[in-house]
This record gives sequence, structure tokens and C-alpha cells, in this order.
Amino acid sequence: MNYELYYWPGIQGRAEFVRLPLEEAAAPYVDVALVPEQDGGGVAALLGFLDDASLEHPAFAPPFLKAGRQLIGQTANILLFLGDRLDLAPRDAAGRRWAHQLQLTIADFVVEIHDTHHPLGAGLYYEQQKPEAKRRSKDFRQNRLPKFLDYFERVLKCNSAGDRWMVGKRISYVDLSLAQVVAGLRYAFPSASRKALRSCPRLGALHDEVFSRPRIKRYVACARRLAFNNDDIFRRYPELDG
Amino acid sequence: MNYELYYWPGIQGRAEFVRLPLEEAAAPYVDVALVPEQDGGGVAALLGFLDDASLEHPAFAPPFLKAGRQLIGQTANILLFLGDRLDLAPRDAAGRRWAHQLQLTIADFVVEIHDTHHPLGAGLYYEQQKPEAKRRSKDFRQNRLPKFLDYFERVLKCNSAGDRWMVGKRISYVDLSLAQVVAGLRYAFPSASRKALRSCPRLGALHDEVFSRPRIKRYVACARRLAFNNDDIFRRYPELDG
Repeated sequence: MNYELYYWPGIQGRAEFVRLPLEEAAAPYVDVALVPEQDGGGVAALLGFLDDASLEHPAFAPPFLKAGRQLIGQTANILLFLGDRLDLAPRDAAGRRWAHQLQLTIADFVVEIHDTHHPLGAGLYYEQQKPEAKRRSKDFRQNRLPKFLDYFERVLKCNSAGDRWMVGKRISYVDLSLAQVVAGLRYAFPSASRKALRSCPRLGALHDEVFSRPRIKRYVACARRLAFNNDDIFRRYPELDG
Repeated sequence: MNYELYYWPGIQGRAEFVRLPLEEAAAPYVDVALVPEQDGGGVAALLGFLDDASLEHPAFAPPFLKAGRQLIGQTANILLFLGDRLDLAPRDAAGRRWAHQLQLTIADFVVEIHDTHHPLGAGLYYEQQKPEAKRRSKDFRQNRLPKFLDYFERVLKCNSAGDRWMVGKRISYVDLSLAQVVAGLRYAFPSASRKALRSCPRLGALHDEVFSRPRIKRYVACARRLAFNNDDIFRRYPELDG
């Protein structure tokens, strides 16, 4: 199966949560928007799917994944699908459900991280909402950031199969996503995340272990992995870091 | 199976998306926070689960559902679970996945609806963020509201099994959720939603059909269904309706 991943070029964005399991499993995939337009790629190919009025299962927004004839949208839904196929999810129904629940909580967290710099909506530039972003970020740093991180640390601590991975005793897509969030937070909020992660040693260890896995290491070192940047979800604006 | 639903009392909130399918299927359930504390209910029972440090699968936030020994969190995840059991979801894997994708898009929409009155975060009162709420609501009314509604209308139109229901030819939890969103929008944004729904006749018809189903009608008429109110997700602040 050759997967086709559709996402905006130039940023990691939500697609990165899909790329990491594909890379960890060494699954063949194409980032379609990065393929030249004359070869059927580019943003044109992505917009083609978004705008195709005849499509029965259109996605509301990228990322979406084409797997054979199936077109699957919503990051957590894509991971639910890929988790089984890439053997990066528990094999029993209850375990799969628990992994998915955690992924949806990560998705909620990502929305709040994004909204620190865009509290008035994505329709305005950051520069048009700087004072509001400062107020929202203060609440985020003081309340939401520690609340989410402490929750995930607690889940690690309570995993009866050991505190190395989030679900059961094997690595899953949840671990890859959470490591990506920790990396993004360290980029965007170096000071606040250092403080909040002090009480989350297991989360720090999980991050380190994910990013030292051979395939993930190779991926991060190669040109396919984009750097964090200020057009993305995780943005480094020192004024928002307190 | 007697389901136990855990949610804050006094508002419909996200739990309403779970109550509607339970009601439509006439499934026995208890709204635990509404049970007297001396009988093991109340907010104390809810907090018990949130704060129980020994729990292996804690929810980050309500709603969560207890089904036998399983504790399931995240609204869309609960619906994915209940959809099969209550026969309110497609029976094939691809159909189930498509329904879930739509539900996750509804969840994204609900976050944006909530954030119209709380753009700076839930940690502050509405009164502390009124000017910001006005700015965010303007973007919501002009861009996001029509974008989401037109998307769902398009999905209805493109359903090859007919434009009555969102997925296939039978009612699903997606229809119940979407009807609830339309009802909530009409409460919160009477003017803006009237305008945006003008180009969405199928969505209007879906709303009417859901709320005229015998069990849903009986539920809405009874005391268990709370009224929309301004402590809830959908709030009527005329200044935000343009």
C-alpha cells in the first residue's frame, strides 16, 4: 500500500502526527503537495480534493490520507486507521479505544496550543491580535499547559504494563504524537515548558526515547522533516512565553 | 447494559451529543451527577473518577461513559463506541470511519462555537473578554459558520444513498449531533444562523426530522432535557450575533 498524504507545504502542522508513524513503520508514502504540479502534485492536487463537488466523502480540511480508494480525514481518525495497519496500536478493541481517547485529548491540547497565538481566530494575523494572544497565553501557561502535561504524566505512571509507553507495553502512535507535542512545546515555550515538565519525568523520557529511535532519528535528520517555524502550530514568540 | 453517563449538571454541554443517541435508542442510562450524593451520585461521583489517582484509564474531562467495566472518554470516542451498540452507525468499517470523521468535524465546530464567547480561554468569565468575543464572533459569523454549514450541506447533497441523512440511508449519531448543533446555533445566533442556513435546506430538513422523531420529541418535552442557557456551549449574547 502506497499512502498519499495531503497537507499544506511549508509547515509540519497536523500532518506531522501522521508522518511520524509512517516513518516509524517505514511505510511508503508520498507527500502529494510536495510533488511537482506537472506530475499531478502540488497544492493544486490538494485543492482538487477539497473543491471536488462530486466527491462523496470530502474532508473539511487537510490533512487527509488516500489509502487505495479510501480518502480519510481528521488526524485522529487517520491514526485510528493507520494504527492497526502499521502495528502501532493495541490489538484489542478496548486498548485501541483507549489509545484513540488519548489521541483526541492530544488533539484538544493542540487546538489550545494553536490558539495561544490566534485567540481571535485564524482569519487574522498574529500581529492583529498580539495583546489578546498575551492574555490567552498567560492562562495557557498557568493553567492549561500544566493540566494537560500532568494528565499525560499520570497516564504514564498508571500504565500497569510499565511507565515507558502511554498504552500497554509497546510503542503506539500516541507516544509518537506526544513526543512531537513535547518537542513543539519546547520550541514554542522554552521557559514555560521547562517549568511544567519538571514534574513530568516520564514524559521527558518518552520524548527522548521516541526521538532516539533509529527511523525517527533518520527522518528528523533528513530534508523531509521541516523545522519548526512561525507559520506553524508551535510558534516561538518570546512575549508569549512569560 | 445500563450505561452511566458522567457530566456537569445544569447544562446540556457535550454530554447532550451522547444523550441524544441513548434517547433515540431507548437505551437505559443514568446521568450520575443528577443522582443524589447519598445514593452514590452527584458531582462528587464525577470528581471521584477524575481525581482517582489509581485509575488506569482516567478521562481528561467529562463527559465520560461507564459501560460495564469500561470507562470511555472523549465525546466522539463515546459515540464511536455507542454507534455500533445502539445501531446508530453504519455497519461496515469504511462507513463507520466516515461517520466518525464527520463527528470529529462537528467536534471542531463545537470548539469554535464555544470560543466565540471565550476567545481568551475558559479561565476567564465572559464579562472579562467581551470586546474580544465580539471580534472573534465577527470572524465566526462571516467565515467559519457558513464554511462549516456549507460543508455539512454538501455532504448531505453528495450522499449517494439520498440527502436525508448524513451517512448512508439510515439515521446515525452524526445526524443527531448535527441537529443539536443547528438547534444550538439558532438559539445562540438567531440572526446569523438564519442567514447562513438559507443556503442549507437539507440541513434545516434534517434538524426538523430529528426533532420530530417520537423518542426525541418525548425527550425534549420532558424534564431530563435541559433548556439552552448562558452557562452552556451555545449562549445567546445578542451583541455577538452582529
